[in-house]
Amino acid sequence: MQTLIIVSHPTLADSNAQRFLWESLPAEGVTWHHLESVYPDGQIDREAEQQQLLQYDRIIFQFPFYWYSSPALLKQWQDVVLTEGFAYGVDGSRLSGKEFGLVLALGVNEREYQAGGREGFTISELTRPYQAMATKCGMAYLPTLVVSKFDYLSDTKRKELLIAYQQYLTKDNDASLKSSENWFKLQLQSLGKAGLSEADQQLVEHLLAVLEDNREQLDDLAWTLAQMEGNQLG
Amino acid sequence: MQTLIIVSHPTLADSNAQRFLWESLPAEGVTWHHLESVYPDGQIDREAEQQQLLQYDRIIFQFPFYWYSSPALLKQWQDVVLTEGFAYGVDGSRLSGKEFGLVLALGVNEREYQAGGREGFTISELTRPYQAMATKCGMAYLPTLVVSKFDYLSDTKRKELLIAYQQYLTKDNDASLKSSENWFKLQLQSLGKAGLSEADQQLVEHLLAVLEDNREQLDDLAWTLAQMEGNQLG
Repeated sequence: MQTLIIVSHPTLADSNAQRFLWESLPAEGVTWHHLESVYPDGQIDREAEQQQLLQYDRIIFQFPFYWYSSPALLKQWQDVVLTEGFAYGVDGSRLSGKEFGLVLALGVNEREYQAGGREGFTISELTRPYQAMATKCGMAYLPTLVVSKFDYLSDTKRKELLIAYQQYLTKDNDASLKSSENWFKLQLQSLGKAGLSEADQQLVEHLLAVLEDNREQLDDLAWTLAQMEGNQLG
Repeated sequence: MQTLIIVSHPTLADSNAQRFLWESLPAEGVTWHHLESVYPDGQIDREAEQQQLLQYDRIIFQFPFYWYSSPALLKQWQDVVLTEGFAYGVDGSRLSGKEFGLVLALGVNEREYQAGGREGFTISELTRPYQAMATKCGMAYLPTLVVSKFDYLSDTKRKELLIAYQQYLTKDNDASLKSSENWFKLQLQSLGKAGLSEADQQLVEHLLAVLEDNREQLDDLAWTLAQMEGNQLG
């Protein structure tokens, strides 16, 4: 899978959250496209952007959630790039079948985004314009990845965020245990090639064997269950 | 009441809808503030904008509904002008108690904005970010005025739109018949000063007398009803 991360942040260098996400990028399969760096004069190249979009399976908008929406340059990008005839229209969309997701950085705790919370509305409610955009372009809308109050996260929470972010960018959009297993197996296999010590390589191989073993046992159980249900119905 | 209309449209001169709204402006009490004309270089003057906001009772955002949101420059305006300490924060908001509303120009029929319609979501759902903004700034959120497919409106519909727009800008936010009567009376009274022919002036005075007469009859009926209810309860 190839994933394009369209980042919009007017002062990227000052953001610890964005730096952490940048440092967390997987080695392969993702492209980081920071609009304010590429277009400091705000003049977006429609043709180049449209051609780029076609190369990817998953499109991510990543930005700080200013006034419940994106910074201005990403909105400009939407209005310039997602034109009728390309992104939607009577002949359909060139983006149809791709996946679309949001990575939002919040300055307040996510639990404030609910009825009765300080922000009053949920993230799902406030991001309807993006959901409607994905729908109009024929793209599957992924659950949003929220990063809230990054500067206050513990080391453990940051490690969890790193995994969640990498999965958000590269894992199949499928909540099954099997899909998570496969993703971890791929990560472990690529680790094996990365010049680990012999002890670490043995650990990785052991983990892979355990995952494989668990999977076989689960498959056996699933098969047995299916047989029992078949007998009851027969 | 003083109303500030913050208009955002990158190609205003090409828009029949925006020209019609501009030509429909009431003679008094409103200021038309077109961001792309005032800031062709996109450099928004925070201090001037904040001072201007304080002079008005009602703030309107008026724009074409591009990708279920505003053009980029209005988003830039929000991020630059509505700062913590001015628009929200521990010391409250300098905008508290004002009214806030949206005038949206749609390219498709408004009925497409519903579950099952081509746009899939209602205008109320898609404009949650503005509702949340108004709430955070302590401003009362007005029902949105939607102008859909202006170029296809009949002359009658355009006249209705003119009245609806003028009322949206200057009428008390109060759905009562009395509030509408008062608004029409003010309009008719200001007409009376505008160099009408004697025949037209007589017509205006007659209309005012009829409105006044209706109001007195309604007040009498309301008083009688209140008496009857009082007797029943007593």
